[in-house]
Amino acid sequence: MINYPNGKKSVPAKSVPHASASRRGMTLESDINQSNEYYLSTGKAVIHKKPTPVQIVHVDYPRRTAAKITEAYFKVPSTTDYNGIYRGKYIDFEAKETASKTSFPFSSIHPHQIEHLRQVLLHGAIGFFIVRFKAYDETFFVEAAKIIPHYLDDQKRSLSYKWFKEEGILIPFSLSPSVNYLKVIDQLYF
Amino acid sequence: MINYPNGKKSVPAKSVPHASASRRGMTLESDINQSNEYYLSTGKAVIHKKPTPVQIVHVDYPRRTAAKITEAYFKVPSTTDYNGIYRGKYIDFEAKETASKTSFPFSSIHPHQIEHLRQVLLHGAIGFFIVRFKAYDETFFVEAAKIIPHYLDDQKRSLSYKWFKEEGILIPFSLSPSVNYLKVIDQLYF
Repeated sequence: MINYPNGKKSVPAKSVPHASASRRGMTLESDINQSNEYYLSTGKAVIHKKPTPVQIVHVDYPRRTAAKITEAYFKVPSTTDYNGIYRGKYIDFEAKETASKTSFPFSSIHPHQIEHLRQVLLHGAIGFFIVRFKAYDETFFVEAAKIIPHYLDDQKRSLSYKWFKEEGILIPFSLSPSVNYLKVIDQLYF
Repeated sequence: MINYPNGKKSVPAKSVPHASASRRGMTLESDINQSNEYYLSTGKAVIHKKPTPVQIVHVDYPRRTAAKITEAYFKVPSTTDYNGIYRGKYIDFEAKETASKTSFPFSSIHPHQIEHLRQVLLHGAIGFFIVRFKAYDETFFVEAAKIIPHYLDDQKRSLSYKWFKEEGILIPFSLSPSVNYLKVIDQLYF
């Protein structure tokens, strides 16, 4: 696990030491997808990213076998991006990265996603956020129950980096899985 | 619940009495979506259909705010269409309808989907199929564990209507939810 003293916030991303040099330039999404593939292939969990929701308007059939979508639009997601099952529990989370060095803006989370997480928590889910501060290459696990009240507070538009250092749990990097968030779930829930 | 004697297999769909005349022409997908909305709005369960997986190749930006997808292709799904949480349990299923009066063909299920269901069952999921025989307007709930061995049997290409009558559970129709599959889950798992 990489830890930075709080005073070192201005360290540029390039000079931050990585667990693996080959990780450089990897997005949070590709890290999580790689981790989920690892979990699946080792029989540890079944967690998938949902497809991007798209409104399909027109489809061409140039050949009998190949349908080509020629007009479609991105839709606002009504749920989070990731869900699945781990140790018998329903898992549900959203992953976001920010370029900001000081705070995570709520504008990147849709109200539908907050409502969805609130609902699944009521039914006994393990619901959370994975938030990466790219400037520090730090990836935090935060329980949804901790973020929801702040999001619903009209006075708040973001959560500070400091808040994540205090309330979140730094997810350890490794070669495989690159973002080992199940390790945090083991600590918190089992 | 509608029950037909086994001998009445040739009854045309039009003459089958419905719980509601307004249901006529509803697809299984729209019935399940309506049921899931009902479950969500009444706080009973959180179960969603996943978006159709699409490979996006080209996106135009005619205006700053509106992205238009101009080239995309359908992808083979790597999981089932529906998942979520009910009474603390992870729920995962695939829904299919067939026009056949005699059998349900395995060709409509992707091998990936069978493998996915096999995996989630190992982790403690409630995994199943909802299969509708359109000719009889009968919708069956079948545990995934019952279908998987038949699917993996190279000699088998389908399961007979008779098999569903014997091994499946007829899902009751109602106005809302139109396909009350959670009632069957209550009976089988709780």
